[in-house]
Amino acid sequence: MRKIAIGQAGGPTAVINATLAGFVKEMMNDHSLTFIRNGYDGLAHGEFIDGDQAMLEWVIQNNHVPGACLGSGRYPLSEQNITNCIKHLKEIGAEALVIIGGNGTMEALRKIEAGAARAGYDLQVIGLPKTVDNDLGGTDHAPGFASAARYVAQATLDIGRDLHSMRNFEQVRILETMGRNAGWLASASGYLRKYEEDGPHFIAIPERPMKRDELLDSIDIAIRRHGCATIVVSEGVRWSEGNQVEREVINGRPVLGGISNEIESFLKKELKIMARFELLGMNQRSSSATVSRIDYKESFLVGVTGGKWIREGKTGIMVSLQRNGQFGYNLNIIPVGLKEVVQAGERRMPDHFIDDLDTYYQWLRPLIGDDLVSYPSPTPRRDIYAKE
Amino acid sequence: MRKIAIGQAGGPTAVINATLAGFVKEMMNDHSLTFIRNGYDGLAHGEFIDGDQAMLEWVIQNNHVPGACLGSGRYPLSEQNITNCIKHLKEIGAEALVIIGGNGTMEALRKIEAGAARAGYDLQVIGLPKTVDNDLGGTDHAPGFASAARYVAQATLDIGRDLHSMRNFEQVRILETMGRNAGWLASASGYLRKYEEDGPHFIAIPERPMKRDELLDSIDIAIRRHGCATIVVSEGVRWSEGNQVEREVINGRPVLGGISNEIESFLKKELKIMARFELLGMNQRSSSATVSRIDYKESFLVGVTGGKWIREGKTGIMVSLQRNGQFGYNLNIIPVGLKEVVQAGERRMPDHFIDDLDTYYQWLRPLIGDDLVSYPSPTPRRDIYAKE
Repeated sequence: MRKIAIGQAGGPTAVINATLAGFVKEMMNDHSLTFIRNGYDGLAHGEFIDGDQAMLEWVIQNNHVPGACLGSGRYPLSEQNITNCIKHLKEIGAEALVIIGGNGTMEALRKIEAGAARAGYDLQVIGLPKTVDNDLGGTDHAPGFASAARYVAQATLDIGRDLHSMRNFEQVRILETMGRNAGWLASASGYLRKYEEDGPHFIAIPERPMKRDELLDSIDIAIRRHGCATIVVSEGVRWSEGNQVEREVINGRPVLGGISNEIESFLKKELKIMARFELLGMNQRSSSATVSRIDYKESFLVGVTGGKWIREGKTGIMVSLQRNGQFGYNLNIIPVGLKEVVQAGERRMPDHFIDDLDTYYQWLRPLIGDDLVSYPSPTPRRDIYAKE
Repeated sequence: MRKIAIGQAGGPTAVINATLAGFVKEMMNDHSLTFIRNGYDGLAHGEFIDGDQAMLEWVIQNNHVPGACLGSGRYPLSEQNITNCIKHLKEIGAEALVIIGGNGTMEALRKIEAGAARAGYDLQVIGLPKTVDNDLGGTDHAPGFASAARYVAQATLDIGRDLHSMRNFEQVRILETMGRNAGWLASASGYLRKYEEDGPHFIAIPERPMKRDELLDSIDIAIRRHGCATIVVSEGVRWSEGNQVEREVINGRPVLGGISNEIESFLKKELKIMARFELLGMNQRSSSATVSRIDYKESFLVGVTGGKWIREGKTGIMVSLQRNGQFGYNLNIIPVGLKEVVQAGERRMPDHFIDDLDTYYQWLRPLIGDDLVSYPSPTPRRDIYAKE
């Protein structure tokens, strides 16, 4: 039986284990599977777990568990590390390497493939996509994003209703979402908005520097009309006159976060109102209670497809999700070259989505699903409230 | 028809509108309902909304919506305010006043009742309980708490799995829950814990000052055994040698929060590890995705009961939930005097729960419900991992 090594890398999602389970179910009967612990760090150090029956069953049992059950982590891949990865794969006799991850993963896979080729080692390489930021190129969207988007949309609506009931006491909440370089997640915050009292009343994303006067104007209008304002910002947002706000630098990678705190201070000073920031936090990528059913299914299917393509001998590719058909949502799964994915770089929101959020929400609908809450207007009898 | 004024006060919950809807459904056919806007602030300023058919229907439609649909807010009740509240109630001819709220609400209701009596105004007064902190006296538990506890339990497990997969990169997460003076919510964080790899590995609550050496020891053990540690702290926790950490003071009420940030700094300095704090935030009290079914039902029932007791002429009381029966969970709903509730003060976790969390979780089970996730062990094949 051909031996296949599979691992998970980068920040986990609520459905990354579904992709792993899909792959394992597809392959377990006619391949020998070896699991890589802790992503590239584990691979560079030769940390493998043999895929015996108990291990295979355990992995499949994890299909609905958030987080990466094999261990993941962020690990900078030096040239020496890549050489080590290849050495360890060769030692165990792996004929294929499959990693579930995002942009960094696909770049690393490409380097490992190239390094193996140079060394005359015939290694089949396939990347399986995942990201909550949705910034992965070469695919319409990536598994994990829709569940995170669903969390953000639900939290924004719910926290907005909470704020609306407290508006005599507290006027502004600033919700900070994940999204280092792309605003897909922050922009999803308005997906459930049906009434103008509901937030977000202002969305700031990394694609567009945030202007202080635009922020103030939006809040001013919302407070005058509704008594409160909900603001949503991506962690990677820059002020038009400044840089991204870094909390700290770990392993050479800046941990972003803090822009919402800066906005809180700015608003309190400028508007003399009660404002509070809040990071939506790790639940965005790990909440089991808000997993999108279609996201789960697609994640699983991505794993199954990766397995099938290993069997077909495909290599140097990532499993890519594409929309097909002008009406409705039809999923096509196609291979896309790792080279193409890497060259595409971090995928930002296109202008036509940023400038017309309704178009974006139509695009989002089949991914998030229709099985979400619908609330009545936050305001009874608008005629009474209009007098204020 | 007798005219009844009803309002909501204090921090909202995910089910406070269910209590309102229950009350309205019970009363709408044979009573004239008037709604108070924005809690005691609105009452002191005579802000009422007439309960016509459209308004009644709108309120009932809000039964599953988080936040207080009538408006709530925190409002300090001076003697003058109490006089104003009574004046406005008398003006509209209210024969009864019903407010859904927590400790502060019950105290205010008692003052209004006393003030009305002194003025020779025959006002029937009933309080309906709600609190996510579960610190309300005179009741076994209060509506809103179980849904918040469910959120905290789920988030701790899910975020813990996320951390466990990133433990090569990040070792400690510190989750800060609501709970100004009581640890019910923070202690609920371990409700779903089945494996020792899962957090929380240390819980700090306001009832017990937090000792730095105990914190360090717990983290040290958890990291040595599992590679990571999840810490849960109530916002109201004090260091054994210090005070509560206040973010700011608003309307004379300190807004707590920041203890988890202090812990993060302390751990980084002492242990030279990667630690990150996170406030679980407003979703604790407003997430619609994690509402406990029994909490919803009980909240609705509390409203219905309040209505029935208005009809029976009861006054000066709060609707109280009591457990009945040694085996299983049987709910008794009884009246408890507002005086008794106020005298009981803020209800803290009893020692026998703090010292034996399993006993506490048995107490919690019927409130949170059994319809929650169950995950396999975070670690496959413990024999392999034991070697590390």
